[in-house]
Amino acid sequence: MLSRNSYGKSCVRLAKVTRRQDRHDFKDLAVAVRFEGDFESAHVAGDNSTILPTDTMKNTVYALASSHPLDEIEDFARVLVAHFLENNLQVSRVRVRIAERLWSRIVVSGTPHRHAFVGSGSEERIATVTGTRGSFAVEAGIGGLVVLKTTDSGFEGFIRDRFTTLPEASDRIFATEIEANWVYAQPDVAFGLYWRSVRQTLLDEFATHPSRSVQHTLYRMGEEVLERFGEIEEIRLSLPNKHHLPFNLAPLGLENANEIFVPTDAPYGLIEAVIRRKDE
Amino acid sequence: MLSRNSYGKSCVRLAKVTRRQDRHDFKDLAVAVRFEGDFESAHVAGDNSTILPTDTMKNTVYALASSHPLDEIEDFARVLVAHFLENNLQVSRVRVRIAERLWSRIVVSGTPHRHAFVGSGSEERIATVTGTRGSFAVEAGIGGLVVLKTTDSGFEGFIRDRFTTLPEASDRIFATEIEANWVYAQPDVAFGLYWRSVRQTLLDEFATHPSRSVQHTLYRMGEEVLERFGEIEEIRLSLPNKHHLPFNLAPLGLENANEIFVPTDAPYGLIEAVIRRKDE
Amino acid sequence: MLSRNSYGKSCVRLAKVTRRQDRHDFKDLAVAVRFEGDFESAHVAGDNSTILPTDTMKNTVYALASSHPLDEIEDFARVLVAHFLENNLQVSRVRVRIAERLWSRIVVSGTPHRHAFVGSGSEERIATVTGTRGSFAVEAGIGGLVVLKTTDSGFEGFIRDRFTTLPEASDRIFATEIEANWVYAQPDVAFGLYWRSVRQTLLDEFATHPSRSVQHTLYRMGEEVLERFGEIEEIRLSLPNKHHLPFNLAPLGLENANEIFVPTDAPYGLIEAVIRRKDE
Amino acid sequence: MLSRNSYGKSCVRLAKVTRRQDRHDFKDLAVAVRFEGDFESAHVAGDNSTILPTDTMKNTVYALASSHPLDEIEDFARVLVAHFLENNLQVSRVRVRIAERLWSRIVVSGTPHRHAFVGSGSEERIATVTGTRGSFAVEAGIGGLVVLKTTDSGFEGFIRDRFTTLPEASDRIFATEIEANWVYAQPDVAFGLYWRSVRQTLLDEFATHPSRSVQHTLYRMGEEVLERFGEIEEIRLSLPNKHHLPFNLAPLGLENANEIFVPTDAPYGLIEAVIRRKDE
Repeated sequence: MLSRNSYGKSCVRLAKVTRRQDRHDFKDLAVAVRFEGDFESAHVAGDNSTILPTDTMKNTVYALASSHPLDEIEDFARVLVAHFLENNLQVSRVRVRIAERLWSRIVVSGTPHRHAFVGSGSEERIATVTGTRGSFAVEAGIGGLVVLKTTDSGFEGFIRDRFTTLPEASDRIFATEIEANWVYAQPDVAFGLYWRSVRQTLLDEFATHPSRSVQHTLYRMGEEVLERFGEIEEIRLSLPNKHHLPFNLAPLGLENANEIFVPTDAPYGLIEAVIRRKDE
Repeated sequence: MLSRNSYGKSCVRLAKVTRRQDRHDFKDLAVAVRFEGDFESAHVAGDNSTILPTDTMKNTVYALASSHPLDEIEDFARVLVAHFLENNLQVSRVRVRIAERLWSRIVVSGTPHRHAFVGSGSEERIATVTGTRGSFAVEAGIGGLVVLKTTDSGFEGFIRDRFTTLPEASDRIFATEIEANWVYAQPDVAFGLYWRSVRQTLLDEFATHPSRSVQHTLYRMGEEVLERFGEIEEIRLSLPNKHHLPFNLAPLGLENANEIFVPTDAPYGLIEAVIRRKDE
Repeated sequence: MLSRNSYGKSCVRLAKVTRRQDRHDFKDLAVAVRFEGDFESAHVAGDNSTILPTDTMKNTVYALASSHPLDEIEDFARVLVAHFLENNLQVSRVRVRIAERLWSRIVVSGTPHRHAFVGSGSEERIATVTGTRGSFAVEAGIGGLVVLKTTDSGFEGFIRDRFTTLPEASDRIFATEIEANWVYAQPDVAFGLYWRSVRQTLLDEFATHPSRSVQHTLYRMGEEVLERFGEIEEIRLSLPNKHHLPFNLAPLGLENANEIFVPTDAPYGLIEAVIRRKDE
Repeated sequence: MLSRNSYGKSCVRLAKVTRRQDRHDFKDLAVAVRFEGDFESAHVAGDNSTILPTDTMKNTVYALASSHPLDEIEDFARVLVAHFLENNLQVSRVRVRIAERLWSRIVVSGTPHRHAFVGSGSEERIATVTGTRGSFAVEAGIGGLVVLKTTDSGFEGFIRDRFTTLPEASDRIFATEIEANWVYAQPDVAFGLYWRSVRQTLLDEFATHPSRSVQHTLYRMGEEVLERFGEIEEIRLSLPNKHHLPFNLAPLGLENANEIFVPTDAPYGLIEAVIRRKDE
């Protein structure tokens, strides 16, 4: 009666300082480990002999972080997945997801400081590696990247039914929080370089695309990533529409020249798509 | 190149007061609507002629809430799914998820009040209905149900490797926040009665099961639900292990007789499983 | 140049299990400790010789929790304040604030369970004790108590100016999250009994008062507490107005008979007052 | 029996687009308005004739935002305070607090974009203006500025008692989230320039100060602000100590060369002080 099941440790927070000659590097990660395998006897009979404690998963994260570089989180996730598969024959699939909080150096008198940093807000770099006895899959991603444009965005020509009150908009604010995840065709690329380049591509397309809808811009962003980066097979984008509603000043005897808005959190539109390279 | 895609409106908050002779009833919902269908031209060409605005979805939720009872959220979710499918031929699949915040009547001088309520905290009743041109699937669920037991829970006999430091525990605190979702075999049952009964079953088993691990108790909870309720086909349980760590008083010259704990939020274990009725 | 200053430890989370013959009791606290005193040399010269580390404050909380009962959090806060004052001559004022998360016993087959509990949501019992070399002040409080009434509440006869669009409302939803803090005239009362009685009084008045405004009901709640409980000198109430806006169904060709509302989080009204016993 | 009391509207979210020839400017504010005055009859008798609805306060914020520039939030807060005082004789004191979320231009091909922006995370610029019939006070502030240094920070020579277990640390991570508020001696300065300069001063001192404690660096930061900016009378700093605990690798047979840390949220130290210019 037991069907799909998994267990693991989430939100293992880890910081590492690398003390170089001329500067310190600082990495700030949250790691989640998940095992799938034959754990039926644990569930049914309370027999823990096939269970590696999640506390040990946590210790392993810190132990391997001390003996491996964390420069690219995709590489560190692979090290963890490989370690767990190698040492746990009862496990058939391991997934490790790492979310990296980003820090910039504080600029003092025009120079980036050697060991002082300022947090970069809600944006996260994400790596997800899944391994089985036969294969590895490497995904990279971005979360929490908040963007907004004040024009070059409209929404017109949509279906109207008896419950539709939304006016056509030829010029509206478009605000969203980009969540993007993409799959590499091969597990060995220059992950950091790719990540920064994909991020810049997403920002460029968001900024410059003459948007007829969230879908329209989402697709453009994904398409451009696939066009530029041959090593990326597919990209998933999730774009909440963080509505900015024009405030109705008319009852106050004033006019709103598309200038004054109410930013809202709820309700929100949510547009999601996977864009894949065409099979040839 | 466009693969899976969907769009919709999330977090449509809706309250309804039903004014009965002897009392008022109050419902407090957050509704999410999601469409799948042929939206390729919207993505690729910015053609919105197949797009029902998410703003209209929102309006529809309020409109139908005014003309339909909200007694059972599963029924209201079905009404919404049926409406959207009937009026939108471009759509192949509609999912509506409703989360109900729960309120109890304030008790004044021993009597539940006719129109005053106190919030029931983080717990939510959830309904998820998915409909296509040919079928309906109804799921019910609970989220945010926080429970804890101070004994009758251990974790022993697990795998030890070189990174394992966790001591065997014959008597530990077991705390979790139950998230459960179950699938009804047929779309017409007494949803409210079932929901309350499944909830009580989950609480009963959590409280009384001599737990050898989170997995062990999770499975027992799911198994008991399937045993008691023939109309339920499968149940998914997600149980974060909200660790309560014994505080080490020894360096302070004191002893901790399994009495003083540090509740922690991170990291946390996460145990998930689907339990299905055996195919006969 | 150093003016007011303080330091301390916040969010010390502590759980204690008391194992009685017939049942277990469970307490779940978050403690904050704050010191004021002569810490000028620490600030100005980096001299830590007058600084008790906040880590030691934390250890002290766990140590004293193991040797003292936690039945009434006001008493435990006093124990902590007294300890810190006694052992730290450099300190002139100590404040300890304890927030207790509340748990109820799971009811199994009609009987409250001996050692299994369900969380009571966002509501907290709060105690704040401040002590100096000469005096002790004991405050108790409630936070996160969410309440709502569907009628017996209006808001009419207010000022209208050129920016006013709010219609008069003779019958509206009144929803708030009660935060109340009260000061005891003497440091020795039956704290638990008082807390439960004040809480019930606040709920009773909220439910039954024919409300003409948030201010009107706030005052009634505070006044009733002072009338019933002679040992309470003053009460502070903070009531956010969690607006439930009628949804405008008219553009959809429907009528809203004061039935369908949009619960909102922002913006919110905020009404605050201190009600004191008249000096005689 | 009514003592101190106030009411107002909080979290009025407002965005304004200013469309200039060569670029768009975007402001994103959350405004809170609070009135004090003679509202006794509202509380005691439910007489609303002295109450300007908080809904009108909200409308006023949008109305005045449409007719005034928002370049400096301190100026806009003053406009609001002056308006409310002038039009509401029943009010004796008005406080307006504005929190500005910060956005940077997206850089496309090396050039800041004319109308596309990326969010700057949790950091906020804050203005608080309080006005009475006779006076105006202008405060500026920063919230949510997360910073961290990996060295040049220690904590030694503190008090040890029987509950102290913290080791002396000559080289530790120092991480905090700066909250700073400062008072201008006069209500007319170049607010934006000052804000950016104070922010840079706080970052510079945080980065370069050889820190013996949070107190030590907090004081240095405040002192430097007062030294550089004669127009600032006092500054309040609130610095939570976001502890990064060395992970104990010894039980795993490894050594931690001050390299691997566990970032923690709770408990946290909290250090607060007001630094004022000496009266001459």
